Amino acid sequence: RVNGDRLWDSLMDMAKIGPGIAGGNNRQTLTDADAQGRSLFKTWCDDAGLTMGIDRMGTMFATRPGTDPDALPVYVGSHLDTQPTGGKYDGVLGVLAALEVVRTMNDLGIKTKHPVVVTNWTNEEGARFAPAMLASGVFAGVHSLDFAYNRKDPEGNLFGDELKRIGWVGDEEVGARKMHAYFEYHIEQGPILEAEEKQIGVVTHCQGLWWLEFTLTGKEAHTGSTPMNLRVNAGLAMARILEMVQDVAMGEQPGAVGGVGQVFFSPNSRNVLPGKVVFTVDIRSPDKEKLDRMRAKIEAKAPEITDALGVGCSIEAIGHFEPITFDPKLVTSVRDAAERLGYSHMNIISGAGHDACWAAKVAPATMVMCPCVGGLSHNEAEEISKEWATAGADVLFHAVVETAEI
Amino acid sequence: RVNGDRLWDSLMDMAKIGPGIAGGNNRQTLTDADAQGRSLFKTWCDDAGLTMGIDRMGTMFATRPGTDPDALPVYVGSHLDTQPTGGKYDGVLGVLAALEVVRTMNDLGIKTKHPVVVTNWTNEEGARFAPAMLASGVFAGVHSLDFAYNRKDPEGNLFGDELKRIGWVGDEEVGARKMHAYFEYHIEQGPILEAEEKQIGVVTHCQGLWWLEFTLTGKEAHTGSTPMNLRVNAGLAMARILEMVQDVAMGEQPGAVGGVGQVFFSPNSRNVLPGKVVFTVDIRSPDKEKLDRMRAKIEAKAPEITDALGVGCSIEAIGHFEPITFDPKLVTSVRDAAERLGYSHMNIISGAGHDACWAAKVAPATMVMCPCVGGLSHNEAEEISKEWATAGADVLFHAVVETAEI
Ligand SMILES: NC(=O)NCCC(=O)O
Ligand SMILES: NC(=O)NCCC(=O)O
Repeated sequence: RVNGDRLWDSLMDMAKIGPGIAGGNNRQTLTDADAQGRSLFKTWCDDAGLTMGIDRMGTMFATRPGTDPDALPVYVGSHLDTQPTGGKYDGVLGVLAALEVVRTMNDLGIKTKHPVVVTNWTNEEGARFAPAMLASGVFAGVHSLDFAYNRKDPEGNLFGDELKRIGWVGDEEVGARKMHAYFEYHIEQGPILEAEEKQIGVVTHCQGLWWLEFTLTGKEAHTGSTPMNLRVNAGLAMARILEMVQDVAMGEQPGAVGGVGQVFFSPNSRNVLPGKVVFTVDIRSPDKEKLDRMRAKIEAKAPEITDALGVGCSIEAIGHFEPITFDPKLVTSVRDAAERLGYSHMNIISGAGHDACWAAKVAPATMVMCPCVGGLSHNEAEEISKEWATAGADVLFHAVVETAEI
Repeated sequence: RVNGDRLWDSLMDMAKIGPGIAGGNNRQTLTDADAQGRSLFKTWCDDAGLTMGIDRMGTMFATRPGTDPDALPVYVGSHLDTQPTGGKYDGVLGVLAALEVVRTMNDLGIKTKHPVVVTNWTNEEGARFAPAMLASGVFAGVHSLDFAYNRKDPEGNLFGDELKRIGWVGDEEVGARKMHAYFEYHIEQGPILEAEEKQIGVVTHCQGLWWLEFTLTGKEAHTGSTPMNLRVNAGLAMARILEMVQDVAMGEQPGAVGGVGQVFFSPNSRNVLPGKVVFTVDIRSPDKEKLDRMRAKIEAKAPEITDALGVGCSIEAIGHFEPITFDPKLVTSVRDAAERLGYSHMNIISGAGHDACWAAKVAPATMVMCPCVGGLSHNEAEEISKEWATAGADVLFHAVVETAEI
């Protein structure tokens, strides 16, 4: 079993870096806080005797050697970046539990055939730079390095420039590493495990996603002196599209979600009808047909809405992953570990995207989940108990050691 | 007649300060650009032999003396501040045409019984600090100085601090000046004069306004892992309220408008359902009953919408003026001047709010309007012709001189 207190202490220490305003964290990718978090993590890896490698996306790979020089490593990790008003566990738990796995292996003097590599992927959240899971996407060959370096934050800063600025560009070619297996431990971020009173989620699938970025073009005009019939109202078009997305998602229940988290009005002045409204629709389903049907419906209905108002509409798909089925053998190893350790468990489909989804393209991969209070995540009030954190880390430890072969 | 070339040159010189990104201006109130614009205006006033007084709201009063020491001054002015993506004429034309009036009086050696005071009111636009027409509102006793000083911009800066920072706090008590009359010349900002092919709008009324600031409270949550039925979706509530406001305004046609120019999502991240959405509804009508009925309908229907979604809703009226009827005698002097000068004219109701609306509370007041291309304003592409600008300035000159009595 792992040392749950040590894991918890590390979580609390990391949470001191990039504090939020309501008890959570704002440690967005490639900020100064991200750089500080990376340094602290590196110190811990050094102390655990691991060897750090960094690739050109800034992803950190801390290796504990195996006994067979030809055996590919087992990778275990997640991400240390957070949402602007994020929790202390989303991603962080997965990285620090991976570290706790190797710390425990050290304590117990466990030797494995395969090396074990604790991994911190860059820009999982996609909050500052879309899309999410960017570094793991480049690693899996889904995006080019050039594409990633040219992603822009809302202020127009480039990913590549910001990575250089914080001093974490590595020299490893991205994706050059080959994996024997990939494990990721994460909080559920949804309400199911808590409601079903299960300690462990055995993650069999992950739902797919489309991020559709809408740019609506209206006519900037005075809110007072512009008659209703002369308005080219991009804000009203946005409102109708939000309602339509809701309808489309409700029409595909159960097993589908759709919503909008980000809206920019321009010039965003109280007495100016917006000339431009940019927003991103986020739709997801574990069923590829449903997912693609939602996208098709939204893309068919949006122009009807905007045409009726004379508003211009362009739609760009800025994020996408297909529904994932995780590796059956690894899924079984997680279930067996939970069973062996006496933890209650159930199969679960991940509602959020994870680096494991891209890793699954290039290696056998799976995930372990623990409950979170009220299913709340992407919220500073995100909470888990030390017992939940420890149970998942125990399961991770067993599954990893089994896969890395003693 | 005034010197139209000189007026135009001054307009173009002022437009060099705080240039926009598409040919217009970003000279928002109490920015460094505002300070530069004020300095240039002061130089011009000094050159015209005027005496500058500044009140504690930063409003600039440049006086050309009259012959009767007991006669109250005729005030003529508007504002030099702009929207973030504003035009070169909105407000600026009124201030610089007032200056052109006294320049022409100087050229012709005209002496008047009443002094004439060229006026630049602070923060007319209300883009950076709500409400609009802030300094004239304090002048008219509608707001306290303390209220004005504590207005916040979106970054949280206080009006009072910013006024001090740019160095334009005067020592005059606000509202201490008494006016014989107030004139304001402004572009129409609407499509009527151009469509009717009239050179001059004789402004008889101004429509009233309510700015209703909504704060919707939802539950920040993951867009992927939060099931549809567990969402407390403040963004969807905002969309439904926008549609409802549109319906309410359409239900009061003709003679009413309603819309939304400003929306803030929080935390505004693509994969986070917003925990908070703040936006401002702008409704207007020249008919007080209609205006208040629209407000009542909106305030009754909004909570029905938010309650159905479990979203919290608070509404604050952050801007208001009642429909204004301008002084009949001054209105006649404007109409007579247009007639005398041979300019085509028509009566018009101002669709936008103006400092003249507050001045009308404490003095006889009226306005002159000229057309603008396509009725476009609060847009960098706002445009007028030199001929239009000159015609209105001629009318202003005649009406002001007549009122100030030779
Ligand atoms: N786990 C997580 O929140 N990832 C961010 C990508 C997503 O939106 O699913
Ligand atoms: N004239 C003008 O645009 N004033 C700003 C106040 C308003 O929104 O009417």
